[in-house]
Amino acid sequence: MASRGISGDGGRGRTGGSEALPPVRPRRQRLAAASAGGEAPRALAAANGNARRARPVGRAAVDNRRRPIGVFDSGIGGLTVLKALVDLLPHEDFIYLGDTARLPYGTKSREVIVQYSRENTGFLLAKGIKVLVVACNTASAVALEEIARDTVVPVAGVIEPGAQAAVRATRAGKIGVIGTEATIASGAYTRALQRMRPGIEIYTRPCPLLVPLVEEGWTEGEVAERTVAYYLESLKQSGIDTLLLGCTHYPLLSALFGRVLGAGVRLVDSATATAAAVQKRLGALGLARREGRGAQSFFVTETPERFIRVGRRFMGPQVDSAVRIER
Amino acid sequence: MASRGISGDGGRGRTGGSEALPPVRPRRQRLAAASAGGEAPRALAAANGNARRARPVGRAAVDNRRRPIGVFDSGIGGLTVLKALVDLLPHEDFIYLGDTARLPYGTKSREVIVQYSRENTGFLLAKGIKVLVVACNTASAVALEEIARDTVVPVAGVIEPGAQAAVRATRAGKIGVIGTEATIASGAYTRALQRMRPGIEIYTRPCPLLVPLVEEGWTEGEVAERTVAYYLESLKQSGIDTLLLGCTHYPLLSALFGRVLGAGVRLVDSATATAAAVQKRLGALGLARREGRGAQSFFVTETPERFIRVGRRFMGPQVDSAVRIER
Repeated sequence: MASRGISGDGGRGRTGGSEALPPVRPRRQRLAAASAGGEAPRALAAANGNARRARPVGRAAVDNRRRPIGVFDSGIGGLTVLKALVDLLPHEDFIYLGDTARLPYGTKSREVIVQYSRENTGFLLAKGIKVLVVACNTASAVALEEIARDTVVPVAGVIEPGAQAAVRATRAGKIGVIGTEATIASGAYTRALQRMRPGIEIYTRPCPLLVPLVEEGWTEGEVAERTVAYYLESLKQSGIDTLLLGCTHYPLLSALFGRVLGAGVRLVDSATATAAAVQKRLGALGLARREGRGAQSFFVTETPERFIRVGRRFMGPQVDSAVRIER
Repeated sequence: MASRGISGDGGRGRTGGSEALPPVRPRRQRLAAASAGGEAPRALAAANGNARRARPVGRAAVDNRRRPIGVFDSGIGGLTVLKALVDLLPHEDFIYLGDTARLPYGTKSREVIVQYSRENTGFLLAKGIKVLVVACNTASAVALEEIARDTVVPVAGVIEPGAQAAVRATRAGKIGVIGTEATIASGAYTRALQRMRPGIEIYTRPCPLLVPLVEEGWTEGEVAERTVAYYLESLKQSGIDTLLLGCTHYPLLSALFGRVLGAGVRLVDSATATAAAVQKRLGALGLARREGRGAQSFFVTETPERFIRVGRRFMGPQVDSAVRIER
């Protein structure tokens, strides 16, 4: 798996130039107008899951396959999703945007999360992406509909795939969901799970301290264990048999979750399920690349040092450079 | 102590209108040019502590007394400094700006902290303030010189007053300093302490998890106690007799610090010392108000709900409303 160092070329690497591939250039002005408070055009409305085929077809459609996949996250955690995508789709190019200057999203309001998500989407659309993956659970939970409504490429979030994986995993029909304050407050996982299997028992718990714990590198030890035990206490007593990890940071705490909950509780995260959903979508749209070795480009809104340092814990040494964009 | 609800009036409350008091209107354009990457004018350079007298004097100087004091912070913690200011200067009006959409600053890079601090300063200068207080330790440690260089009103940070209070408190000349990653990495407290008393022993420790702990409300209990004990272990073994709380959130953990370190270690925070320094400065400049009951206006960059909810833990019920500004 190759990583491309693009520091210093202004982000105009092979995956970064929309000029080379103009056909499905997205409508940036419209997006900008919507994020400035204007009425979003309803004509484009399409819920997540209702992917529209990129136009034009035929000869141009072949070129569209070569476009990169755009992934954004509030910061670093989305690298767990990118890692799953790269593992499953090794021929694809990826452009990852981490909004590191403004993380975390999990404690922010709906209004601000939608605004920031639209700005992230606009940046990636301008890079000529063929599919947008919203890797951040909080942004997926809160802003996915707004983003999909204004965007001409298919948009995939992590909520639906994660919920589907949890429904497949549970035997007793008792699922625990943990996430940030904003993700849990949005009720997005609860709605998705209830729609997929009405009557299912769902127990939710916001766990605001787990993201700072993981970013500090405290994924083991007494403080992490007691914090996790505290957060999971009520879920454990509810008799859940499946725990849905509704935040990209949480897979790094899997060992601890397992120890606190015991072997009888299955852990489900969205990363693998989301990658599988994106693979299926690309196939259905005829947008999958069949050959070549893909690369990843990283963009961040903070200076890149911390992203690279912490990002390696999430994805490995291929997080070796990133380009800062101003916010 | 009165609070003024200014929601809905667009921030044009009595303390909010710079139109009424034009004489020392700050040079916003110059500030904007500097923050856009232009060379800052050196003619205005003045280190913190070298306050310049506001002009013009005489009749207009009397009016300048009526201007509000501007205070900014990365978010909520600066309310501990505002509280100390209000207690000591009850006749003054205050405008508080919390950059809640972009908190925390403590894990951000110097470059971004300077940029955000300049934007905060520009907002407050446009409100016609007579003095600027940088309540955030991280912004004070990293960006104070840059801010003071471009600003025509006196600028006060929390580092110098905090360091002075610690030097006064220590008997053995062994001081521990705790703060965010950015504050400790800047070395600002170490430089200030060494300048004030050469040869003093200084032991520093970044404590990144304490801010999220306080914001989650976990200022007591096992997790907080073990986290604090872990962070303070090496300082305790160094034999410090004074602990300088180099972050506005930390006073809420004072009871825990005391328990972990024992009664022999004095705790010093910057809030009270900063308020005293501002009082002295106002007196020297002839800018202090002698009568009337001051009020506080709150501005935030996020939606105000969380600021009000968490802010009350820091300052009390007078945090009852805030106006959101877009960022």
